[in-house]
Amino acid sequence: MSVGRQSLAVLDLEGVLTPEIWIAVAERTGLDSLRRTTRDEPDIDALFSGRIEALDAAGIKLDAILEVIEGMTPLEGAVDFLGELRSRLPVLVLSDTFEQFGRPLTAKLGEPAMLCHRLIEQDGRLAGYRLRIANQKQRAVEAFQSLNYRVVAVGDSYNDVTMLTQADAGVLFRASAKVASEHPQFPSCDAYRDLLAIIDEWIAAA
Amino acid sequence: MSVGRQSLAVLDLEGVLTPEIWIAVAERTGLDSLRRTTRDEPDIDALFSGRIEALDAAGIKLDAILEVIEGMTPLEGAVDFLGELRSRLPVLVLSDTFEQFGRPLTAKLGEPAMLCHRLIEQDGRLAGYRLRIANQKQRAVEAFQSLNYRVVAVGDSYNDVTMLTQADAGVLFRASAKVASEHPQFPSCDAYRDLLAIIDEWIAAA
Repeated sequence: MSVGRQSLAVLDLEGVLTPEIWIAVAERTGLDSLRRTTRDEPDIDALFSGRIEALDAAGIKLDAILEVIEGMTPLEGAVDFLGELRSRLPVLVLSDTFEQFGRPLTAKLGEPAMLCHRLIEQDGRLAGYRLRIANQKQRAVEAFQSLNYRVVAVGDSYNDVTMLTQADAGVLFRASAKVASEHPQFPSCDAYRDLLAIIDEWIAAA
Repeated sequence: MSVGRQSLAVLDLEGVLTPEIWIAVAERTGLDSLRRTTRDEPDIDALFSGRIEALDAAGIKLDAILEVIEGMTPLEGAVDFLGELRSRLPVLVLSDTFEQFGRPLTAKLGEPAMLCHRLIEQDGRLAGYRLRIANQKQRAVEAFQSLNYRVVAVGDSYNDVTMLTQADAGVLFRASAKVASEHPQFPSCDAYRDLLAIIDEWIAAA
């Protein structure tokens, strides 16, 4: 007899399914200031503004960044993991990246729907960005809960904590030792097979 | 310069991306009472209860129905259309079918996230169903709008009208002449290339 509530999964992109975009860009541009991520800086606005100003000051255009991103591939095993997960329940990606940056990567992941932000481009320059909505990951989880879904959220870093807390179940995947130790309330794992096992157990408990 | 609001698309499943599941089941079981769809009967509860009672009374089990559904294929051109659309913006399927029925079809469509309902099975029998939430299509559109997305919705029948009305743009696809003439406020088309052109124009107007 199957009468449990319906479940839905939301996943962070960078660190969970793909490498960190900004670290790849830092490696190719040599701009070390781009290496800071949401793992290091919880204030998204400070982080994003700093990155965009650094790139623009160095004269690096959007095309050059997109070329770096198009050369990136999902983490090993991510495509198979996502395929398994999508056969079980609806899956969305919640990312604080920009549409323009995320698209080459979601294409390689089989086009999961991704909710994120948008970069403002002007004549090929990075002119700024527009947060679609503040605290969008937590707000999206709340929205799916209001539609009577129980939600499992998977993330790796500071900007995922409110989403993991809001979700019916939150899981840390390949989090830094610092993030994991500061949030012992979330199960934490480093292998996709372990992540899938945690989610399967949670689905079965509906 | 790209500063418009971010857009998202929601699509009905049956009639827009796949044939009507219940018509296929009616053809294979010979139960003509299953032929009524949301095009004919706007009251979902009456429609669903009638279908489930008719199948159970005829001794038809879930396995037999799933075998019919697994033999179905998406509408010609649907996979390519969905691929094109997903390269442009996040896409979700909003369907009043059941998880169990929809999964063989979403698998053939490349696993778009689908929000729907759930069948209650008991010992292989259809014991009933659970609406996840009343008026779920309209509610989902409202939820994405609350996350600051402008939403385009595509449907073909009565149970899509509240969703199309709520959306920032609603489009009828292969609707019956009756549905289309009763809702002249929605653009209406029958070919995927025309549907894509309507959505492209709407995206560009953001």
